[in-house]
Amino acid sequence: MRQVGSVLWPKLRLLQVYGANTGVGKTIFSSVLCRAFQKRFPKVHYLKPISTGPQHEADDQQSVSDASVLAAVHDELSRYATGEDGVAIVETAGGVLSPSPSGSSQADLYRPLRLPVFLVGDHQLGGIGTTISAWESLHLRGYDVKSVALFADDRYDNHSYLKDYFAERDVHAFSIPPPPERIADTTQDAQSMRQYYEYVGSLQRVTTFTDRLLEAHDKRISDLQSMPAEADESIWHPFMQHRERSKDTIVAMDSAYGDYFQTYTTKREDQASSKTETALLKPAFDGSASWWTQGLGHGNPQLALTAAHAAGRYGHVMFAGAVHEPALRLAQTLIEKMGNSRLSKVFYSDNGSTGMEVAVKMALRAATVRNGWSADDQILILGLKNSYHGDTIGTMDLSEPSIYNKKVEWYSGRGHWLDFPQVKMRKGQWVVEAPEDWEGAQATSDQGRVFDSLDGVFDFDKRKHDHSIYMDYCGAMLAGLEKEGKKIGALILEPILLGAGGMMFADPLFQRCLVESVRDKGLNAQSTGDEADWAGMPVIFDEVFTGLYRIGRFSAASFLGVDPDIVVNAKLLTGGLLPLCTTTASQSIFDAFLSDDKSDALLHGHSYTAHAVGCAVANQSLDIMMKMDRDGTWTGFKESWSQPGHETAPPADRKVGAWSMWSNAFVKAISHRSNVDYVFALGSVLAISLKDPAGASYASTAATGLRDKLFAGNPGEQWVIHSRVLGNVLYLMAAMTTSRETLEVIEEKVFTALE
Amino acid sequence: MRQVGSVLWPKLRLLQVYGANTGVGKTIFSSVLCRAFQKRFPKVHYLKPISTGPQHEADDQQSVSDASVLAAVHDELSRYATGEDGVAIVETAGGVLSPSPSGSSQADLYRPLRLPVFLVGDHQLGGIGTTISAWESLHLRGYDVKSVALFADDRYDNHSYLKDYFAERDVHAFSIPPPPERIADTTQDAQSMRQYYEYVGSLQRVTTFTDRLLEAHDKRISDLQSMPAEADESIWHPFMQHRERSKDTIVAMDSAYGDYFQTYTTKREDQASSKTETALLKPAFDGSASWWTQGLGHGNPQLALTAAHAAGRYGHVMFAGAVHEPALRLAQTLIEKMGNSRLSKVFYSDNGSTGMEVAVKMALRAATVRNGWSADDQILILGLKNSYHGDTIGTMDLSEPSIYNKKVEWYSGRGHWLDFPQVKMRKGQWVVEAPEDWEGAQATSDQGRVFDSLDGVFDFDKRKHDHSIYMDYCGAMLAGLEKEGKKIGALILEPILLGAGGMMFADPLFQRCLVESVRDKGLNAQSTGDEADWAGMPVIFDEVFTGLYRIGRFSAASFLGVDPDIVVNAKLLTGGLLPLCTTTASQSIFDAFLSDDKSDALLHGHSYTAHAVGCAVANQSLDIMMKMDRDGTWTGFKESWSQPGHETAPPADRKVGAWSMWSNAFVKAISHRSNVDYVFALGSVLAISLKDPAGASYASTAATGLRDKLFAGNPGEQWVIHSRVLGNVLYLMAAMTTSRETLEVIEEKVFTALE
Repeated sequence: MRQVGSVLWPKLRLLQVYGANTGVGKTIFSSVLCRAFQKRFPKVHYLKPISTGPQHEADDQQSVSDASVLAAVHDELSRYATGEDGVAIVETAGGVLSPSPSGSSQADLYRPLRLPVFLVGDHQLGGIGTTISAWESLHLRGYDVKSVALFADDRYDNHSYLKDYFAERDVHAFSIPPPPERIADTTQDAQSMRQYYEYVGSLQRVTTFTDRLLEAHDKRISDLQSMPAEADESIWHPFMQHRERSKDTIVAMDSAYGDYFQTYTTKREDQASSKTETALLKPAFDGSASWWTQGLGHGNPQLALTAAHAAGRYGHVMFAGAVHEPALRLAQTLIEKMGNSRLSKVFYSDNGSTGMEVAVKMALRAATVRNGWSADDQILILGLKNSYHGDTIGTMDLSEPSIYNKKVEWYSGRGHWLDFPQVKMRKGQWVVEAPEDWEGAQATSDQGRVFDSLDGVFDFDKRKHDHSIYMDYCGAMLAGLEKEGKKIGALILEPILLGAGGMMFADPLFQRCLVESVRDKGLNAQSTGDEADWAGMPVIFDEVFTGLYRIGRFSAASFLGVDPDIVVNAKLLTGGLLPLCTTTASQSIFDAFLSDDKSDALLHGHSYTAHAVGCAVANQSLDIMMKMDRDGTWTGFKESWSQPGHETAPPADRKVGAWSMWSNAFVKAISHRSNVDYVFALGSVLAISLKDPAGASYASTAATGLRDKLFAGNPGEQWVIHSRVLGNVLYLMAAMTTSRETLEVIEEKVFTALE
Repeated sequence: MRQVGSVLWPKLRLLQVYGANTGVGKTIFSSVLCRAFQKRFPKVHYLKPISTGPQHEADDQQSVSDASVLAAVHDELSRYATGEDGVAIVETAGGVLSPSPSGSSQADLYRPLRLPVFLVGDHQLGGIGTTISAWESLHLRGYDVKSVALFADDRYDNHSYLKDYFAERDVHAFSIPPPPERIADTTQDAQSMRQYYEYVGSLQRVTTFTDRLLEAHDKRISDLQSMPAEADESIWHPFMQHRERSKDTIVAMDSAYGDYFQTYTTKREDQASSKTETALLKPAFDGSASWWTQGLGHGNPQLALTAAHAAGRYGHVMFAGAVHEPALRLAQTLIEKMGNSRLSKVFYSDNGSTGMEVAVKMALRAATVRNGWSADDQILILGLKNSYHGDTIGTMDLSEPSIYNKKVEWYSGRGHWLDFPQVKMRKGQWVVEAPEDWEGAQATSDQGRVFDSLDGVFDFDKRKHDHSIYMDYCGAMLAGLEKEGKKIGALILEPILLGAGGMMFADPLFQRCLVESVRDKGLNAQSTGDEADWAGMPVIFDEVFTGLYRIGRFSAASFLGVDPDIVVNAKLLTGGLLPLCTTTASQSIFDAFLSDDKSDALLHGHSYTAHAVGCAVANQSLDIMMKMDRDGTWTGFKESWSQPGHETAPPADRKVGAWSMWSNAFVKAISHRSNVDYVFALGSVLAISLKDPAGASYASTAATGLRDKLFAGNPGEQWVIHSRVLGNVLYLMAAMTTSRETLEVIEEKVFTALE
């Protein structure tokens, strides 16, 4: 699959000429620029890829896709880049948003290239408005528009207004005299135009412009080249031992579009030696979905426009005792679509950590009030080993001591954490494996051990034996805790997939049994019997990572067929645009904070709680994903995972089968590779556990070799893969909009890169 | 000062007609709409406020300000609203962004009204692009554009393309036949046009449009009216005892612009009984600056466009081991402009709480490494009573037990907290008061007690006696802690102003002495002697609230003339648009995490760490404020605070004098009111401490009466004041762009509302 990214070559200066409207003189300006650059460079290229813009004016071109136009332009520019020092001018057709042959717009068509833009303004009546609007349309599509030029027309004097307007916005604007009237006699006309071009070319402002362009080109390159070293100087990176950092390890991101970052590294440039035709930027597939947040492609124009609209309508309106439409609508959507009748109230915060802090405060209070505990009692949570809920100290305390937290001075794990059976694709077979010496291991040494499909793992009706063993185990475990006098304030689970703790796939039946057990035989005082009331202990599902379609469904809890009392969502919530988190709770949890005393309330909040821009973007992001779900956008992916006997009648409480955007055949194939321990895939997530002779841990480096190989790519490859590792696990994550074609290429690259 | 807000009346349907370009038929469409509505309503109003758009075409109108046009339109519409059931159509001049008489644009001029928009599309060649760009320009200014209509011109067929394009964006688009050619004979021409209007008026699509508009109007009102009750149903509000909440206490925010929310409350509507001419929306001055975040006005177009550009260019690009231009530039700006030569590395997170979690992890590690402590040691922080650093459990532990945290199950204060002397304007005099029975009280019972100006409090050179007494107190306090064997890992201060803990103004000299003391005589192992190295214990300044011009300077630390080792910034950082936080640390703090072991690193991060949109908006926000600072935008405010003998030669390390946007005379005046205990003001912050017979505390309700009075306003008042209280303190906060004229009106309202 062809992937065209942003282009930048050391010795080829690029300029894309857009028009604020038709008939504003793009071609004349292009000629002026060509002539100006010809004075300086032996080679000036001029390219006008599509002579007719709007689709309806060129029906014969309807079949031309954006991708093929882009590829052709990219090839042509690449050819220029191998030649002498020069300039290339790419002229567009019509106005900025005039339709491309495929029906998208000029600005959307060329966006992946992100060429520096020369915008020809509109000198006609009304041209001030059309020029500024055109500039805004380019700006919000991520283009750098540093120059605007137009014909001086003294009737309207647009150029005077625009010059001042753009100067305030750091955009250089200038005007040139309009061309002479055309003359019927072609020889005379040609001479008249020649004189015009000569005269215009002599103008200082044209020379100034060319100077600026050359400087801007050099500056863009030098800025990019110096960015890694400057970042090494002034940035403290997250999750990094900085002794391992240098300017050569830092990836500079010029921009991102769709599935791809546009990357620069000093290392890659060194490898390419000093060949001037070498592109400085390389597209890299965003293989961690930008830390699991990205769902609808980078630079998604709908999300960007939605953010801008909300910013224009509200800015941020403080949420204490207030409400606005985006926050209300988002709350209602979450409560409705989660399919969990317990859920009733949405609390907003900024990220998964704060959302989990809120969740645990909610649960502990509910448990304390009902059980008559005091705030001084040592209250613990019940959870799984290798869980991860965030980096604030309170959420660190939700996990057992690990590399993440054990050296943090104020960390003190406050919980009881269980080992758990995991689902793995091992040598072509789905298996459920218990940890060594696990007390509940009996469950997995019986017939339930091997499954003929991933769906089989979720077919709880057929796993009655496992169910009964898990229930016995959970019952005994709870009885033990009770005997020890432990006060347990919440059960906290990441449903199915334990993310940052190592990308582990928990047996969903085991998680379900845990929830059933704490509710049936839970410690502590009993619930009111109301079905929506929590029982035993409040159950929190941390769906920050797994919720909202990441593993294929709106609600990750629906895989287990149980309803938590509190659910936390973030990441995909805003489609990968900006931070927002929701903690959704049941009425009975909410009621625990009601009293006549203000100090009994949940006195928690953040400045940007329910900020309008975040909520609006979340609504848009959810709308798009729910529509994709309804429209069967992922049907193709699902097909490779459907199994006779499962897909026709899935259990009613779990609606559809398990599926992944990664193909079943690929997952099977790589599970046989010699350096692979096991694999799994669900939704857009793929995790490859590599064999590490030193044992699996976060400190393992078994996977870094594969990561580096994928990012280095092979010579001549158009794009590479940027990925993240967790110890010996390399994971890859697609956006919910990534195409099968793209994933197929990635699957091939990964298959090849494995031994 | 006249304040025009968004308008919404029950029985007056409004529509603003914008053109995608000039010459697209706005007036004809307005006529078509007028005629269509006349079939349904006795009264249809048509208003065209400015017949000539661009400034340069009407030089005689140059003196017409946007505010006066807006006021005139508002008055006219208000007059219509008192009449019969009807419709008003407001036609604009030129295109969407054509200049207004003042030189701004049509869309910017009318923005505060936020009328529903009818956009007349461009049927001419190139009109697809100009129409979509015009729509985008309106959209990013917060307008609701639900209808686009244009002439059907079969040569270009723009209408077919646009109909589909907008349908996907939930915008209803339709076309009508173009008008007939004009005829020289006026009688015939009039007849021809009459026939045209009759024919067009008979078209189903026009009827459909009018139906939709009427429905949309009713729906906008019913949505607004139901929002408080629905929020009561589905929202869990921050910082609120929900037993006190009902649909009648929740404020619905329709939108916000500049300094004002556009608010709806069921209570206000009830009070106004069922008068149909009563405006449903009321502008309310955002008196808490939306929880202290807002700095450049709601709906600021520069911030909105910047957010859109970054969203288009990047979306969010994951920051692990990566860098992008907005994050790098922001880090460099902060390090450079803070004026603190210690600072060297910027860590990004999402809000003040997470930023403080990071800061405390940094400081404790640095202290632990140097002192050879173990992670199991009980390490405390040193701070002031009534400090507040956030709501995550780790940051709660930084404060002494209080109403905010004491009932939180996992809270455990880990510090030693000091009482401190406060600065107050009491009965017209600036005083420094020590708490009762304070061990350091001697300092304030001496001549330093009363000051002739606020600047006097900051004139440390003249307060040598206070300095020596404070130093003695601090020295003794540190010696006591050392004797008790306490391990203190950090000194944490909110410089000058303790925000959420009750808006207390700490004596800056005392805070300075604390820092000097821990560095001079601090416990623990000694520093390397390097000037940039921390000594005694790391010093953290929480400038989340006070930094970045909130109290008048880029750096709040500069008021104290001391350089912290770690500074946390948020709130104004992004101008009140979206969440972002920075924790900036010295090289010596950074170095404490360097080792060959990954687990020694600061293993902290959030998904959206250094998200590009946030960083880009922060750069824009800081650029604007730094420019305002350079250009002397606040000179007028400063003048009322400058005192002979102080302003001419301020101490070199503290650059300029203390000043406030609230006038010196006003602050003095209200300090004499009988129900006022004391007042203070600095930068954009004003805090009024009210007398409470029951004593001052967060649970006090002394200030809520004043708050409610300001929000209710007086009958006939154009706008009211929305404010927040902290116990017995009512505070008001302006944006950095709020005008003196606006503040004068507020000062008058507040003065009157006080007894």
